[in-house]
Amino acid sequence: MSLLVVGSVAFDAIETPFGKTDKIVGGAASYIALCSSYFTKSVNLVAVVGDDFPNEFVNHLNTNGVNTEGLQVKAGEKSFFWSGKYHNDMNSRDTITTELNVLADFDPIIPASYQNCEYLMLGNLTPKIQQTVIERLTNRPKLIVMDTMNFWMEIAMNDLLATIKMVDVLTINDEEARQLSGEYSLVKAAAKIQAMGPKYLIIKKGEHGALLFHGKEMFYAPALPLEEVFDPTGAGDTFAGGFIGYLAKTGDISFENMKNAVIYGSAMASFCVERFGTERLVNLTETELNNRIAEFKKLSAFNV
Amino acid sequence: MSLLVVGSVAFDAIETPFGKTDKIVGGAASYIALCSSYFTKSVNLVAVVGDDFPNEFVNHLNTNGVNTEGLQVKAGEKSFFWSGKYHNDMNSRDTITTELNVLADFDPIIPASYQNCEYLMLGNLTPKIQQTVIERLTNRPKLIVMDTMNFWMEIAMNDLLATIKMVDVLTINDEEARQLSGEYSLVKAAAKIQAMGPKYLIIKKGEHGALLFHGKEMFYAPALPLEEVFDPTGAGDTFAGGFIGYLAKTGDISFENMKNAVIYGSAMASFCVERFGTERLVNLTETELNNRIAEFKKLSAFNV
Repeated sequence: MSLLVVGSVAFDAIETPFGKTDKIVGGAASYIALCSSYFTKSVNLVAVVGDDFPNEFVNHLNTNGVNTEGLQVKAGEKSFFWSGKYHNDMNSRDTITTELNVLADFDPIIPASYQNCEYLMLGNLTPKIQQTVIERLTNRPKLIVMDTMNFWMEIAMNDLLATIKMVDVLTINDEEARQLSGEYSLVKAAAKIQAMGPKYLIIKKGEHGALLFHGKEMFYAPALPLEEVFDPTGAGDTFAGGFIGYLAKTGDISFENMKNAVIYGSAMASFCVERFGTERLVNLTETELNNRIAEFKKLSAFNV
Repeated sequence: MSLLVVGSVAFDAIETPFGKTDKIVGGAASYIALCSSYFTKSVNLVAVVGDDFPNEFVNHLNTNGVNTEGLQVKAGEKSFFWSGKYHNDMNSRDTITTELNVLADFDPIIPASYQNCEYLMLGNLTPKIQQTVIERLTNRPKLIVMDTMNFWMEIAMNDLLATIKMVDVLTINDEEARQLSGEYSLVKAAAKIQAMGPKYLIIKKGEHGALLFHGKEMFYAPALPLEEVFDPTGAGDTFAGGFIGYLAKTGDISFENMKNAVIYGSAMASFCVERFGTERLVNLTETELNNRIAEFKKLSAFNV
């Protein structure tokens, strides 16, 4: 079923203990569109780049079934750029540069052909822009999933709360869930956040897996323990792409199927961190994905 | 099948954000014996206490099938005593007092009736004493499980390595696995630690669950997200008690059955942290345990 993806399409420069990159393709919507295209060939992208953004990546998206009619290319302007350096434990990083560039006045225009998408994935972005997207849709999608981060809790909490209220699924990490709710216990945090609007909450815990909450129901998806985490950049976006992609593919938004979607999201994220940026995600095979899903099943199955 | 449990039986005084206790019963072997007695009525305890230790707790163990012939009671001496205070996040604590008392010169005497136990659980204790226990057994048990902690890595690494070499299963937490192996990646850490002797390694990650490693095989048991962790003291010992108890009950030490044992250990630990000390563990019902196991199944089952 048709999916609308909104978020940043940008450049990153990344340094990890394993090496560093020049400017490479990054941005939440790049990861989300790329990943969800493994599940459905009806992905519609809304984003903005400058004329410095490589055609190759856009062509790659098109070839994989991503409609980029909604990708605005601003002549004479530069794409959003972030650079950062990860610490040795890979759990924390320092931002070195943030250049908003075209993102500074991004107006998310929805092409007419995108109206009536059944699934909406709002990648991490200014909450006000995420809200504008929802308001510009003629019909409310069947499911709205929103990703966000602590940064917006610090500088735009009211906008964030207004936007969160409008969505069905919120994805954040454990520290953000604690910050947003003021509760240390994730069970209590989940209850408070659900009271803010979203009926479903996904708490991402990195190497410790992910939790899906819905009312009193809980699901704990493991993360696959890896020999090496090479670059964690984009893992959360990749997770979101796998999650929404699987839901759009199956057309089933029950809690039971969301569990499966969380496993697919986790599997996609486990690939993401094996290489820099989107490198591992551009040429994944169906067999590789199926084998990874089998590893997740083996990892968590028991028989009492 | 018969189980030998060795470790401290002691007093703790605990302060958490939820309150504080006077001297209450604690010690690794108290938790282990108590928990394993839910699974098998052939538990044999080796430990040492002073004459200040309450008969009530020993009687409770006896009533639940724990043989305390090997519990030495030292007249005129005092039991081991630890007191500590947990920080707000419950993930770290400060030790306020450690009084070794009878533990200072503990000689682990194995009663003749304990020989030929098929399972041995070495609770956290001086590695040299753990080693002495193994050496004093006429026949090597079918399975030796050992728990330890970072403290011994700092003051008795050589003894620790010699003891680790003699056991089948080692249980430690994630930070300790990193410290022992010098590897940040738990997959790499697990490989290095298995090369030190134990064919099975359990890495306990507290609220993030537990990992079981054996060769290239891995199993990830979730922890049950709780509204409130009241007191984490003894959670690792309780885990060990549930783990070894389930194995001794079923008599099956295959990797597949160890997965189940890890789930039982995790379930027991989830009860432990709901109250101070051993409070929640002394009167657990079979129905409560079965319901908790059902919660773990629901928490981690998916159907892709």
